[in-house]
Amino acid sequence: MPKFFVPECDLSAGTVTLTGSNAEHLKVLRVRIGEEILLCDTRGRDARCAVELLGGSVRLRVLETLPSRGEPTVSAVVYASLPKGDKAETIVQKAVELGAEGICFFLTDRCVSRPDAKSTRGKMERLNKIAEAAAMQSFRGRIPEVRWLPDLASVLADACEREVRAFLWEGERDASLRSALQQRALFRSAALISGPEGGFSPEEAAQAEAAGFAAVTLGERILRCETAPLAALAAVMYESGNLG
Amino acid sequence: MPKFFVPECDLSAGTVTLTGSNAEHLKVLRVRIGEEILLCDTRGRDARCAVELLGGSVRLRVLETLPSRGEPTVSAVVYASLPKGDKAETIVQKAVELGAEGICFFLTDRCVSRPDAKSTRGKMERLNKIAEAAAMQSFRGRIPEVRWLPDLASVLADACEREVRAFLWEGERDASLRSALQQRALFRSAALISGPEGGFSPEEAAQAEAAGFAAVTLGERILRCETAPLAALAAVMYESGNLG
Repeated sequence: MPKFFVPECDLSAGTVTLTGSNAEHLKVLRVRIGEEILLCDTRGRDARCAVELLGGSVRLRVLETLPSRGEPTVSAVVYASLPKGDKAETIVQKAVELGAEGICFFLTDRCVSRPDAKSTRGKMERLNKIAEAAAMQSFRGRIPEVRWLPDLASVLADACEREVRAFLWEGERDASLRSALQQRALFRSAALISGPEGGFSPEEAAQAEAAGFAAVTLGERILRCETAPLAALAAVMYESGNLG
Repeated sequence: MPKFFVPECDLSAGTVTLTGSNAEHLKVLRVRIGEEILLCDTRGRDARCAVELLGGSVRLRVLETLPSRGEPTVSAVVYASLPKGDKAETIVQKAVELGAEGICFFLTDRCVSRPDAKSTRGKMERLNKIAEAAAMQSFRGRIPEVRWLPDLASVLADACEREVRAFLWEGERDASLRSALQQRALFRSAALISGPEGGFSPEEAAQAEAAGFAAVTLGERILRCETAPLAALAAVMYESGNLG
């Protein structure tokens, strides 16, 4: 059943009228009168709807509303240093599928890509579109937001109240993400901070530690900068019972 | 320290001479006499070496040999239905980083991409090069092999002796990969079978079940065909203590 996101849409009214790109998209899918689709209000609620009228706009009858099943029980935010090329797209798409609450990009000492304010804005717009498409495709109940933060200090401030605060660092030899997650039984929120192609500098690791973030390793293999945050997110979802 | 793979190389002889592309690569990296590099025999053993002579070839003195730390303690094989476009490359690269023992591609009912024998051979060659590069970059101790199997029946036969035999299927509502992994305490081998863009057919799921493979879900979110095997592999590595 196709799923559509209609931000802030009122599912309690009995009928919903789709216009613009949503209506166009339904027509491209060649839906017919009586056919069922899933509508999501992007606030964690879905509605099973039947197509009632097809014209310039599309009228839907709400048959049943239910909580979106695609939302995990844990709120995990991925903070990724801005990578080169299209790796930010990969991080956003996969992090949304895996259940991230949100994704933030930021600059660190060793970031190779350092866009100016204007191209950063454009990049965030594109990444938010990718997040929306990935949320639809993976049957999420909300559209995760992609945000920009200027630097590591802002990231540490943004993430400081999360129960699990993991700073993924290949310089850490002992403490593992696994032990950090298992020390916090039944955690409900997590922040995963990952570095750029060249990794975090020791100064950045010290800065994170001073702010109460645990440097953790993902093991003996060196993961690429786009693989590490996704593997860590899969671990968070697995440990909290949200990956199968 | 840069790492080089020299297949079947004898680390016990005291010195190793690199020729061809390995020697070229060392020169591109502008290594100097006395500088240290890591050499891997692709059989799970690494050697710390010092550059002794730089010419048309490069002579290295073996300072110390040690087991490759990058090899996980669990042998996991990813069996992925051949996806469209460059997703096979993504699966190979990330599966090698995450620690897969090997990767097999095969055709299923709903595969969109159905290359002929010649282009399959070419594709496997390219994918094996990607596996080699990913193994070097992630500091593996072996180069995982990428193989082609004609169909699901061959996959089920190939994987039948693995302790964990998981058939990732979005049609499964109850049994989770997590329960399959946790039922097998201290498993040492796993097979993860994943479907194409349109998923496995119910007939294929029945075929796998009849062969003793457990259909398992990865949860409520629908993962893309390249994300599902990688998330499952991350879960296998996490559960077995090989991801941090």
